[in-house]
Amino acid sequence: MKYKIAVLAGDGIGPEIVAQARKVTDAIVAKFGHELEYTEALVGAVAIDEVGNPYPDETHELCMNSDAVLFGAIGHPRFDNDPSAKVRPEQGLLAMRKKLGLYANLRPVNTFKSLIHKSPLKTELVDGADFMCIRELTGGIYFGRPQGRTEDGQTAYDTCVYSADEIERIVRLGFEYAGKRRKKLTIVDKANVLATSRLWREVSQRIEPEFPDIEVEYMFVDNAAMQLITWPKRFDVMVTENMFGDILTDEASVISGSMGMLPSASIGVHTSVFEPIHGSYPQAAGKNIANPCATVLSAAMMFEYAFGLMKEGALIREAVDKSLEAGVVTEDIADGKKAYSTSEVGDWLENYIQ
Amino acid sequence: MKYKIAVLAGDGIGPEIVAQARKVTDAIVAKFGHELEYTEALVGAVAIDEVGNPYPDETHELCMNSDAVLFGAIGHPRFDNDPSAKVRPEQGLLAMRKKLGLYANLRPVNTFKSLIHKSPLKTELVDGADFMCIRELTGGIYFGRPQGRTEDGQTAYDTCVYSADEIERIVRLGFEYAGKRRKKLTIVDKANVLATSRLWREVSQRIEPEFPDIEVEYMFVDNAAMQLITWPKRFDVMVTENMFGDILTDEASVISGSMGMLPSASIGVHTSVFEPIHGSYPQAAGKNIANPCATVLSAAMMFEYAFGLMKEGALIREAVDKSLEAGVVTEDIADGKKAYSTSEVGDWLENYIQ
Ligand SMILES: CC(C)[C@H](C(=O)O)[C@@H](O)C(=O)O
Ligand SMILES: CC(C)[C@H](C(=O)O)[C@@H](O)C(=O)O
Repeated sequence: MKYKIAVLAGDGIGPEIVAQARKVTDAIVAKFGHELEYTEALVGAVAIDEVGNPYPDETHELCMNSDAVLFGAIGHPRFDNDPSAKVRPEQGLLAMRKKLGLYANLRPVNTFKSLIHKSPLKTELVDGADFMCIRELTGGIYFGRPQGRTEDGQTAYDTCVYSADEIERIVRLGFEYAGKRRKKLTIVDKANVLATSRLWREVSQRIEPEFPDIEVEYMFVDNAAMQLITWPKRFDVMVTENMFGDILTDEASVISGSMGMLPSASIGVHTSVFEPIHGSYPQAAGKNIANPCATVLSAAMMFEYAFGLMKEGALIREAVDKSLEAGVVTEDIADGKKAYSTSEVGDWLENYIQ
Repeated sequence: MKYKIAVLAGDGIGPEIVAQARKVTDAIVAKFGHELEYTEALVGAVAIDEVGNPYPDETHELCMNSDAVLFGAIGHPRFDNDPSAKVRPEQGLLAMRKKLGLYANLRPVNTFKSLIHKSPLKTELVDGADFMCIRELTGGIYFGRPQGRTEDGQTAYDTCVYSADEIERIVRLGFEYAGKRRKKLTIVDKANVLATSRLWREVSQRIEPEFPDIEVEYMFVDNAAMQLITWPKRFDVMVTENMFGDILTDEASVISGSMGMLPSASIGVHTSVFEPIHGSYPQAAGKNIANPCATVLSAAMMFEYAFGLMKEGALIREAVDKSLEAGVVTEDIADGKKAYSTSEVGDWLENYIQ
């Protein structure tokens, strides 16, 4: 089979880490006899610089016509201290999510034996934690309207909106993933305060009987924020709305101690996007020191989720595991031992797969 | 001086822990020559049972005419599994916040040497953490209108609203507390997405020049959720809006490992409320095993914040510290050593102060 991949490397370390992922995906298709057609396009600060738009129309067209999008990272420090900037890289991200209908952001959180000591949590609490966060990505307060100011500028408002259909789509996904895993689904909301959360709960409870083998629990978001730290192993699949998901998935990502290793997939109506959860890490850009593993593992998710190629995905994971065992790692996880460069890690993974 | 205190013991362990706080406050006023007039009133599930309203008018009247409110806890499990219950204990809490104008919830987070091993975080990360979370408590998505459903019931919406005045009031409080502490203020928002957050930032930036000795940083809420775990000692005073505060303060409360020790104050327009941050712990109700220290320390905050009596507050803190050193602690923190009962701990603290 031939797959079309849109490559959106973006800002900072984006180009370097995506280059390593391509070495790996090339090695995979060579081995398994598939074909990949890559087309690069602009996104983020670099797109603002070149065409004045962080998610240009040509980029969108390309994504719409691709089987998957491999995404690096976006963001540049010159925007961080300038809240007044009219055009910002994040707007590109939000536009992409909305236009591609990327309704579900999936973030597996798991630990790596050789990195567990880097977790801020005590080892016994986090060792063996293995769960999947599913965040609704195109609804809620991120996109609800009206949003703005009253005429006098002295009052601001945002609107959180969810339709039953939006909720059903993502909650079903939660049930389905739970079915493929340890059959436990945690639905996180704030139903004791929010009308949208009460609709989430109503829709979820309506769907529940269709999945009798899944154990469902409803948890308030404040409680979830605590349980992620005090007892992360209790979770299997967690599903939640956009804003809560933004907070909880980032919280979840640091407990493993392996931020540089965590991939994500954003499942869309039109296509799906695969990207590391870490940012554009501008201080490291161009230095060939960034950890490419999160992007490489995002490519593994691409084979599995976008193309249904499970063996291909599994081999990539195996390669990453072996590279950790072999100590072929970048400085962020080298722990005083020899640190390899971004491209050396990429080469090692490519070789392993070949 | 004579102070009028409304005592709202509430549900579960509420009455037991408030009783210990009263032993302590009685001992304090006897020692320092003040007078306290306590009046008890209903709140929570017990108020629903007796008068059908979780925050009855008589209770509100009493609070309005009191110098401070000593609050236990509310909540009963029979409501947890019944989202359809028309009248719920939480509604009482929200009504009380709104009617008393409790705009600022203050939660000091600190660690106790003898309890640090109970933290889910590695000791070196959390030992010495000492910060104050200030949560806006009467605005945002908790109270914004419209809230509800479209006519067909298939879409739900909530509204997050903040006025410049509401923001200014709480951000000023943040600056003032930072001034009394280590002079660092972290303002948490989501200004890259929300219009309300952009107003928060605008107002904060306008106030900044008035406090030239305070170091201010703006942090996105997702980042704050990570930093609380990876580097809690970086925080001095954190101020944020209602919903973010709900999540972050609960997250912050578990990192210390001493949930049963953490007090809070809710500063109001009309009066202020002092309560432990933990819940009504219904499984322990009536068993004389609950830890009264968070409530006792809330009473310390009452002397300091509501009455400006700093020595009185300090002596209560000293008593609690000494009880920990002496190992006179309830089972939640006894660690296999002898556990004292709720009332024994209260007696010990009373004696120490006398
Ligand atoms: C950059 C920002 C708009 C974005 C979000 O809040 O969704 C980011 O935090 C993320 O989680 O991808
Ligand atoms: C019970 C609930 C409404 C409340 C809140 O969300 O404010 C609680 O979680 C709290 O933090 O006091």
